[in-house]
Amino acid sequence: MYKTEYIGNGVCAPEGFRAAGAHCGFRRNIRKNDLSLIVSDAMCSAAAVFTRNKLKGAPVLVNKEHLKDGKARAVICNSGNANTCAPGGLEIARETCRLTAAALGIDEKDVIVCSTGVIGSPIYLETFEKGIPKVVKRLSYNGSEAAARGIMTTDKSIKEVAVSFTLGGKTCRMGAIAKGSGMINPNMATMLCFITTDAAIEAAVLQTALDEDIKDSFNQISVDGDTSTNDTVAIIANGLAGNKPVTGPGRDYDAFCAALRTVTAYLCHHIVKDGEGASKVLKCRVTGAPSKEVARGVSLTVIQSDLVKTAVFGEDANWGRVLVAVGYSDQDFKVDNIDIALAAGKKSVAVCEHSVACIFDEAPAKEILSQDEVHILINLNQGNESAIAYGCDMTLDYVRINARYRT
Amino acid sequence: MYKTEYIGNGVCAPEGFRAAGAHCGFRRNIRKNDLSLIVSDAMCSAAAVFTRNKLKGAPVLVNKEHLKDGKARAVICNSGNANTCAPGGLEIARETCRLTAAALGIDEKDVIVCSTGVIGSPIYLETFEKGIPKVVKRLSYNGSEAAARGIMTTDKSIKEVAVSFTLGGKTCRMGAIAKGSGMINPNMATMLCFITTDAAIEAAVLQTALDEDIKDSFNQISVDGDTSTNDTVAIIANGLAGNKPVTGPGRDYDAFCAALRTVTAYLCHHIVKDGEGASKVLKCRVTGAPSKEVARGVSLTVIQSDLVKTAVFGEDANWGRVLVAVGYSDQDFKVDNIDIALAAGKKSVAVCEHSVACIFDEAPAKEILSQDEVHILINLNQGNESAIAYGCDMTLDYVRINARYRT
Repeated sequence: MYKTEYIGNGVCAPEGFRAAGAHCGFRRNIRKNDLSLIVSDAMCSAAAVFTRNKLKGAPVLVNKEHLKDGKARAVICNSGNANTCAPGGLEIARETCRLTAAALGIDEKDVIVCSTGVIGSPIYLETFEKGIPKVVKRLSYNGSEAAARGIMTTDKSIKEVAVSFTLGGKTCRMGAIAKGSGMINPNMATMLCFITTDAAIEAAVLQTALDEDIKDSFNQISVDGDTSTNDTVAIIANGLAGNKPVTGPGRDYDAFCAALRTVTAYLCHHIVKDGEGASKVLKCRVTGAPSKEVARGVSLTVIQSDLVKTAVFGEDANWGRVLVAVGYSDQDFKVDNIDIALAAGKKSVAVCEHSVACIFDEAPAKEILSQDEVHILINLNQGNESAIAYGCDMTLDYVRINARYRT
Repeated sequence: MYKTEYIGNGVCAPEGFRAAGAHCGFRRNIRKNDLSLIVSDAMCSAAAVFTRNKLKGAPVLVNKEHLKDGKARAVICNSGNANTCAPGGLEIARETCRLTAAALGIDEKDVIVCSTGVIGSPIYLETFEKGIPKVVKRLSYNGSEAAARGIMTTDKSIKEVAVSFTLGGKTCRMGAIAKGSGMINPNMATMLCFITTDAAIEAAVLQTALDEDIKDSFNQISVDGDTSTNDTVAIIANGLAGNKPVTGPGRDYDAFCAALRTVTAYLCHHIVKDGEGASKVLKCRVTGAPSKEVARGVSLTVIQSDLVKTAVFGEDANWGRVLVAVGYSDQDFKVDNIDIALAAGKKSVAVCEHSVACIFDEAPAKEILSQDEVHILINLNQGNESAIAYGCDMTLDYVRINARYRT
């Protein structure tokens, strides 16, 4: 409906955004970037959503203050340490903004600060003092990939995307980088996502677009059911595309949301694909639900089930576990007429109809489960709403990675 | 306060209970018992609690009917097939009660029927027709262990316990068998527990005692966060001890509850100890909570966290993950003054005070985490309520077991 095209250059794809990443000492491995910076040439409308964990990383608290005015120009983010429950962490997060602002000649309130990594380890201001000049010096209009690398923790692949779209006849661009991997669960993930756009859009409208989007994107993904303390999705829009500013509902707002959805859906897919230890992407589509909330809740419960995830890893069509998870989701609906099918590509196998086991051949089911992306299709047969949740299988590597994470 | 002593003979410890177990063909391995029977010589008061999964196994539905009158005399249970979503399952569960009742010369409404195993596989009446005479024939006053073996699925150890206690000067006995292992989570677990007692107690009072008990026992354990469709805890009391029947609150009721708690706490410990793939028992004790619900909810959230469980497996004092789980529990409380310690035996190490990291030595922390039973002690510092949750670590074997369960 709205034309959105993939382009290159990530967060630097939109007009007027520079980025950089560098190793600054938060991590021991000097080949890994651990500090990233994104800066806009012009002031941006800004919006963000944060973790709903009661315990919040120091940066989250600072960002909530800084984004009250709906404006920002820069994002600074370190990996390797979450700055959560660290002694003096709040002051360190504030000072990080001050140092970044001073180096860029902007106001400290226009800096968004994020941290990701181990929780409860001491974090030192000196590392930022040394690192910030380094990343500032490296800023470039082609720096998206370096910045994407600087926010990775256990991620194996970089998560970067950009699209072009049209608002009122003007070509606009939107780019994003994200990190995922572990402690990924709705509300939200140990998940950081920074989105840039050169579209002109009012801050309040930007916030609404983001709030709506995450209900079906980042709040519908899970790697391990653990909701981090630092999750942040921030979007900054500098208006340099020159479109008539989006100020409320209408065609332009819808086109903007379509571009945003393209970006977030891409990143959701890639975050679960690179989930800790994951060997397969697992998507659960619930249809026939009495409400959107039921569809979202049920699909999410299924992809969060350790037993479903291990069965998919084992390529075992043990669909009873799917039905069990449907049954213990905390949504209100009837369980007496549920259909379940397993699908991959164009193939599908019905395994349960009207909540009763189907007789099915194991061979095609096994063939489906052996694919890189497995879909569980659930029809609740009691309404017209639907939703998708994004997850991954649970593997031996998941346990290996998380048994030795700190060491 | 109330004297409770461990004794032998499991469900056959109380006066007038016979039990048996045999291989009848639900499982392929002919060395594994897969059908168990417990019978009382006299009519019993009966009470039970069932899964809160919206999807319920056929036996659960039948038991709800049969226990309406608060009476029962026998428990029949197969393993290897859960009789959930199986074609014709409800009729098979009913017919199982009829066949058992006929063989014992009792009323079919006085039979409790349970099934555990794979969900959604066809189950055949023929197997019960062949098996029931076999277990009836084997009934004995020493048959508890055989019955305990007959209800096991992925369990590696049998779960059996018995105690003696005193009501109004009369010695009473209580015995129980249970099965656990996987799909274990509050409300409740794939968990079956059958408790026998020769105490005389009214059915309604028995139900109240059981309802109260499970709040701090079976509803506080988790192996994998998956709530089964078949979970059942049933208690039958035949009154043969000759005590003055317990009809309401008072000293005898309290003594009965103390005995019940001894039995259920023992089984909870052994269920998590034998959790699928578990190498360690993990207990989380929350103190200083503003309410019992907060204490229960927080402790349970911690032992359910895959990241906490894998860290314990890896003997990694990554306590930040504990605090993260505390933060995302859905209870309402403050997170700014939380103390966390790790403990085993008489040793403990404080790792977090006032929600800020402590400097601690890794060596003693590692020493604690290398023990078979690890305790996470959390003080919320905002009230006087406390609770314990029982769990286990998440290991490579957990994934191995669940990736190949059906095959």
